[in-house]
Amino acid sequence: MTLPPVVTTPTDLERFRDDGVLGFVPTMGALHAGHGSLIRVAAAECDVAIVSIFVNPAQFDDPDDMERYPRRLELDRAFAGDAGATAIYAPNLETIYPAGHSTRVSISGITDRWEGADRPGHFDGVATVVTILLHQVRPDRSYFGEKDWQQLAMIRRMSRDLSLPGRIIGCPIVRDRDGLALSSRNARLSDEERAAALVIPHALGAMRHAATNGETRATTLISTGTSVVNREPMVQLAYLSIVDPETLEPVGTIQEGHRALIAARIGATRLIDTMDLTSAAESMVHYP
Amino acid sequence: MTLPPVVTTPTDLERFRDDGVLGFVPTMGALHAGHGSLIRVAAAECDVAIVSIFVNPAQFDDPDDMERYPRRLELDRAFAGDAGATAIYAPNLETIYPAGHSTRVSISGITDRWEGADRPGHFDGVATVVTILLHQVRPDRSYFGEKDWQQLAMIRRMSRDLSLPGRIIGCPIVRDRDGLALSSRNARLSDEERAAALVIPHALGAMRHAATNGETRATTLISTGTSVVNREPMVQLAYLSIVDPETLEPVGTIQEGHRALIAARIGATRLIDTMDLTSAAESMVHYP
Repeated sequence: MTLPPVVTTPTDLERFRDDGVLGFVPTMGALHAGHGSLIRVAAAECDVAIVSIFVNPAQFDDPDDMERYPRRLELDRAFAGDAGATAIYAPNLETIYPAGHSTRVSISGITDRWEGADRPGHFDGVATVVTILLHQVRPDRSYFGEKDWQQLAMIRRMSRDLSLPGRIIGCPIVRDRDGLALSSRNARLSDEERAAALVIPHALGAMRHAATNGETRATTLISTGTSVVNREPMVQLAYLSIVDPETLEPVGTIQEGHRALIAARIGATRLIDTMDLTSAAESMVHYP
Repeated sequence: MTLPPVVTTPTDLERFRDDGVLGFVPTMGALHAGHGSLIRVAAAECDVAIVSIFVNPAQFDDPDDMERYPRRLELDRAFAGDAGATAIYAPNLETIYPAGHSTRVSISGITDRWEGADRPGHFDGVATVVTILLHQVRPDRSYFGEKDWQQLAMIRRMSRDLSLPGRIIGCPIVRDRDGLALSSRNARLSDEERAAALVIPHALGAMRHAATNGETRATTLISTGTSVVNREPMVQLAYLSIVDPETLEPVGTIQEGHRALIAARIGATRLIDTMDLTSAAESMVHYP
């Protein structure tokens, strides 16, 4: 196995510019099989697959959360190489935010609720860093996971609104064998917390089961999901809603493509998940 | 004389993509010799010179000002062609702002004062439309006039902060024979107002005269300029300040490159002007 080179500046990326279709997977590192699936798709669809690793201070509303975020470049490098990455782009802070940086990209409406309401400034931080990275990398295709559905919807909107370079491609959630959506934050859970966290996918599964069996009222479906979560005292629900997949507005009656969004806290760890309640094609469990 | 073609979509611009260095002059139309000089520089320095004409609703804080803004595409087209434009890019509203557009680019600090304080939302509107246009046109070099100095400083900062495509190039103010900086808004002045407006360049000239003769105190220089403006009762000063050319912060003592910024209202028309107070090289009058 050869390790992919690590480059740190936009100039270093120039050498990949003429090698064909350029795929891009932006990450904050701490790579898991969810990222692995994005990198595999990028490597399969493109001639070059660049994986960026940058822990973005601007998108953490909680400094402790940023502090605790795992950093392990050499492990990530080997993992990304196995998945087919051509190179790792690991810019330092000044390359992304030069001294005096004072420009912000923000998207209204779509970011007002859910993660936007619970994490002030988070989405502006994501929108700004993604804009910067897309300009520095100039990909033909960029890959984002569907787990962060609101983020993906925001990036799609922003990309369209600003005519940003390249296409934005969403990829399905990868789940552990027991159904928990993979997340870098899962590593922070104790064994007991890990077991308790399963009420999150179970709630979504119960909601989809009810929806595909004919229940169309969002309030009823949300009650179903909430009662599953509330069976586990270690888990505090932040929100559970059913939304239009593009506008992220809550809906009253389920239609094709409507999704459940959930966020919950287990001890100090906050997890999110999402599921299309109208489609059995989006399997509840994808093995890594 | 051949008229440059008018194109209306980013796809139409593709045909100019492989013709060499692409220069870009974004405008709101109502072209005058100031724009002419930008187009001439773009045509001289680049293989292709694209002039965009788009009256951007997002940068007007006053709907009446937007309503009164002159629109005359065919005259502009001939004028731009004479100056060396390869093509006119005249997108419609939906091409710039597709339905549901909700993304905004904003720059803090540099836009807080002066035009930013007097015209709420104006700079966010400029930053957002320039970002969109730069993505749609993808120029190697973009040309902006120095008359809108704060705008130019903001665009330079934004371009650096977001790694936007291409270089940003500022071009000197073009003045009428009597010293008035050219502006599309000058056409709204009556003959009497036009004569009164000359106190604007006269004030700047008096300040530069004092500064190049040894006066270094900003307060004294601002008093000098203010007394020139106040001799003309038809002109109401909005602001007159001396600033750092990059940060736009007011300064106490003049140093190399510090600039006066002025805005004043003559009847219903608001004009702005600026001058480097430390350099005789920036001539007070450039003939069109």
